[in-house]
Amino acid sequence: VHYKLYYWPSIQGRGEFVRLALEHALADYTDVARMPAARGSGMPAMLRLLGDSRLKHPPFAPPILQAGKQYVAQTANILYFLGGRLGLAPRAEAERLWVHQLQLSVADFVVEVHDTHHPLGPSMYYEEQKVAARRRAADFTRNRLPKFLGYFETVLARNGVRGGYMAGGRLSYVDLSMFQLIAGLRYAFPKTMKRRERHIPGLVALHDRVAAGRNIAAYLASERRIPFNEEGIFRHYPELDA
Amino acid sequence: VHYKLYYWPSIQGRGEFVRLALEHALADYTDVARMPAARGSGMPAMLRLLGDSRLKHPPFAPPILQAGKQYVAQTANILYFLGGRLGLAPRAEAERLWVHQLQLSVADFVVEVHDTHHPLGPSMYYEEQKVAARRRAADFTRNRLPKFLGYFETVLARNGVRGGYMAGGRLSYVDLSMFQLIAGLRYAFPKTMKRRERHIPGLVALHDRVAAGRNIAAYLASERRIPFNEEGIFRHYPELDA
Repeated sequence: VHYKLYYWPSIQGRGEFVRLALEHALADYTDVARMPAARGSGMPAMLRLLGDSRLKHPPFAPPILQAGKQYVAQTANILYFLGGRLGLAPRAEAERLWVHQLQLSVADFVVEVHDTHHPLGPSMYYEEQKVAARRRAADFTRNRLPKFLGYFETVLARNGVRGGYMAGGRLSYVDLSMFQLIAGLRYAFPKTMKRRERHIPGLVALHDRVAAGRNIAAYLASERRIPFNEEGIFRHYPELDA
Repeated sequence: VHYKLYYWPSIQGRGEFVRLALEHALADYTDVARMPAARGSGMPAMLRLLGDSRLKHPPFAPPILQAGKQYVAQTANILYFLGGRLGLAPRAEAERLWVHQLQLSVADFVVEVHDTHHPLGPSMYYEEQKVAARRRAADFTRNRLPKFLGYFETVLARNGVRGGYMAGGRLSYVDLSMFQLIAGLRYAFPKTMKRRERHIPGLVALHDRVAAGRNIAAYLASERRIPFNEEGIFRHYPELDA
């Protein structure tokens, strides 16, 4: 199967959780909006898809994954779809739902990370909501970040199967997402993370193991990995990193 | 199967999306935290579950559904789990993922509804963030609410199968969630909704049809349906309803 990923070409964003799964599995895929527009790809192709009134299953927003005639949207849904196909999810239904449940908690956390710089909503620039952002980020770094990371560390510790993965004895897509969370939080909140990391040794070790994996290491060293920047979810604004 | 739902007993909240599915299907279930504490139920039972260090799959937060020895958390994940079992989801995998995708967009919308009264995060009371709430709510009622409801109306219109449901020709759990969204938004933002409803005739008709269904009508008329209030997701603060 050849997969097509439709996502904003200049940010990691939510699409990165999908890119990591595709890259780890060496899946055959095109990152459509990052290709030259001249070849029927690029942003025009993504905007055409978003505006296509013939689509029976219109997506609300990117990322969108195309597999043949099927379009799947919503990051956690895409990963659920890909998990079985790419060998990145357990086979038993109860375990598959457990990994999906964890991914949905990742999604909740990602919203809260995003809202540190956009507490008043997505329609205003950061510069228009800096005062509110400071208050929200203070609560985030003091309360919410420790709560979420502490939860994920507990999940790791409770996993009865050795190997240091979130669920069962093999790597699943949620392990790749944990890597991305730690990497992103280190970029956005370096001071906060410096204090926090000694409380989450399992997650830090998992991050390192994922980063050192052959396919992910090659991806991270490639131009396919978009650098963190101040357009995505994880943004480094020193004033928000108390 | 006897299901146990663990959720806050004094609010509809996210648990209501699960309650509606259980009620529509006349499922055999206990709303644990709403039962008397004396009989091993009530809030003590829910707090015991949340603090149970032997749980291999600890949930991040309620709602949590117990089916035998299996615990499933995250609202959309619970509905995905229940959908097939209660006849509230299509059988084909692509259609099941489509309904789940819609439910995840419902979940995104619910976060934005909640954040109108808590833009600075869940750790502060509404009264401590009223100024920021006004700004966020203004953007919500002007931009986000029309965008989300317009999207769901488009989904209804694109459904090739007659019947007025969101997906395919039979009621699924996402139809029940649409009822809850419309009902909640009418409670929280009556002025905004009065202007908006003529743009979403399909959703309004779907709301009415769900409300008139025998099992849901009986539920809504019962004491099991907790009234909307200012502790849940949909809160009526007149100053936020521009």
